[in-house]
Amino acid sequence: MGNRIPTSRDLARLAGVSQSTVSRVLTNSPRVNAETRARVLKVLEEANYTPHALARAMKTGRTGSIGVFMSRVTSPFHSTMLDLIGRRLSDLGLQMILWNVEHDPQETVRQVIHQRLVDGFVFTSATFSSELHTLALSSGTPTVLLHRGVDDFGGDQVLGDNWQGAYDLGRYLVQAGHTEIGLVTSPISVSTARDREQGFRAALADAGVRLPQRNVRRGPFNHADGHRSARSLLARRSPPTAIFAVTDMLGFGVLDGARSLGVRVPDDVWVAAFDNTDMASWEAFDLTTVDQPVQGIVEAGIERLRHRIAESSSEPTAATVTKLSCELVVRGSTAHTPVERT
Amino acid sequence: MGNRIPTSRDLARLAGVSQSTVSRVLTNSPRVNAETRARVLKVLEEANYTPHALARAMKTGRTGSIGVFMSRVTSPFHSTMLDLIGRRLSDLGLQMILWNVEHDPQETVRQVIHQRLVDGFVFTSATFSSELHTLALSSGTPTVLLHRGVDDFGGDQVLGDNWQGAYDLGRYLVQAGHTEIGLVTSPISVSTARDREQGFRAALADAGVRLPQRNVRRGPFNHADGHRSARSLLARRSPPTAIFAVTDMLGFGVLDGARSLGVRVPDDVWVAAFDNTDMASWEAFDLTTVDQPVQGIVEAGIERLRHRIAESSSEPTAATVTKLSCELVVRGSTAHTPVERT
Repeated sequence: MGNRIPTSRDLARLAGVSQSTVSRVLTNSPRVNAETRARVLKVLEEANYTPHALARAMKTGRTGSIGVFMSRVTSPFHSTMLDLIGRRLSDLGLQMILWNVEHDPQETVRQVIHQRLVDGFVFTSATFSSELHTLALSSGTPTVLLHRGVDDFGGDQVLGDNWQGAYDLGRYLVQAGHTEIGLVTSPISVSTARDREQGFRAALADAGVRLPQRNVRRGPFNHADGHRSARSLLARRSPPTAIFAVTDMLGFGVLDGARSLGVRVPDDVWVAAFDNTDMASWEAFDLTTVDQPVQGIVEAGIERLRHRIAESSSEPTAATVTKLSCELVVRGSTAHTPVERT
Repeated sequence: MGNRIPTSRDLARLAGVSQSTVSRVLTNSPRVNAETRARVLKVLEEANYTPHALARAMKTGRTGSIGVFMSRVTSPFHSTMLDLIGRRLSDLGLQMILWNVEHDPQETVRQVIHQRLVDGFVFTSATFSSELHTLALSSGTPTVLLHRGVDDFGGDQVLGDNWQGAYDLGRYLVQAGHTEIGLVTSPISVSTARDREQGFRAALADAGVRLPQRNVRRGPFNHADGHRSARSLLARRSPPTAIFAVTDMLGFGVLDGARSLGVRVPDDVWVAAFDNTDMASWEAFDLTTVDQPVQGIVEAGIERLRHRIAESSSEPTAATVTKLSCELVVRGSTAHTPVERT
């Protein structure tokens, strides 16, 4: 049979029985006599045939697969999260089916639900506009959001405390004497960016430091955009003395944008970001950033999902939103006293 | 039924027939009368039930899933390759089941084959010692190796021409006048590293330039190792005037190692690498490197795999090894004339 999965016809021929008898054996039907069942099972064994997803699923109601939706697997933070999710699922003996959500996710999720391909969903790229999670949740498929949340989502969420982490960072900058501060962020439609911006603004407001619109730049979460934003902020007559980029990736772009103008970090401008990816500690960046406890987020999120899958036949318990605290990590990109400007 | 896959018992109860009748309908058994079949199909439709992997597979011999084995999804080159593989499979309507191969890959592959979870395998992290691919191939499951090859592998492989790319880079360095050259590479057990080292050595040999053992450093493919290797090469009394790191990731570490010693690139030492990841073009690195046509590798590899899956019932055609050429990309890390040393 080469690589092909033996069809019921193949197996029936080998066992000298009808296809429906093979199907009865595969589905544990009581209506097969012991001798016939033994003969079919022997053939299955000789054909090295193991009942597959559905055969198992039709007995247990489980597929053993978890669907993971992730955008931007090429970003350092997301690839680290993917690595941890994959290892955790593998430790638990579960298969990870991975989709890049840019790819018509609505339709994909509809099909996956319709075909019941997975026991549960992990979403790591929620946006406010996204209907994916509601779609998944309303189908009754256990669903957990990691890293990015949705305010009115009825299901479980495990997130970093982005508001608090950004508040601590903002307070650190104003306490160091900065009053002209730049913010490089993204469209407001992503919870991580929104909460980081709000926490940061709150810290400045509490210290009586204004964050004028002219100091704010918005764009995609990529290096090129951080680069562009830094150049437009730093080319001004009185540029900010500190810049907060809401992700490490944007922060790397800001550092390179400053480099491209010959602006020295931290002597001329402080740069700080959020995520604490491995790269942030490299000499090339030496970036002050807020640590997201990605391992804790992944472990707590998958635990939550397993709990949902286990209880899904009984009455579900209330949805939970777990927020893990994020800690400021000070490095060379802010480690000197700022330049006083008049 | 909540999120559960309806079991044959559920469906049978709803249709008022026996489980084995449901099974007959699911497997298209002729031994169900039209009226009963209609009733069962109506119930399946009302239960929003679509035949799942095995039900489809038992008719078609296909699962619609491709198994991808990849190590180090956190390295920039590998995460880019993963992104491209995911998009390509998604375009083709195939599911990607992803495993990190550090995780007892032998046993995982054995189970996947045994349970016939996938129609084919993509391996991106072959090592010479690996039995994975032989295991997969001997099971009759269509299998393709991307990026990293195995010399005596009986199946299809799509690789960059690592030997040729490294030869071109080596020739570029010696033609620029370098005679004291460092090599930062990995254990020889990976085809990419081996072929790059051999091509590089051949270029130096053809130009009469020696590569003494004291100029070679070996270790894992990570930033910390490139960093350590650069420091040990550059701390020497007469250090190399150029260093070739066999991957961009090692190259980033070499650049940071030089930075940590206050050694200027390219003024004091040239640095070049291999892969041309996006990061190589950032100001932080501005790294001369050899471009691997990762998109071409992924597209050709998946095409090859689809061909195998399509022919797998007939007599298989001979295995092919495709090598795509790799082009030198010169950037600031080598763009000045080297410092002459005596």
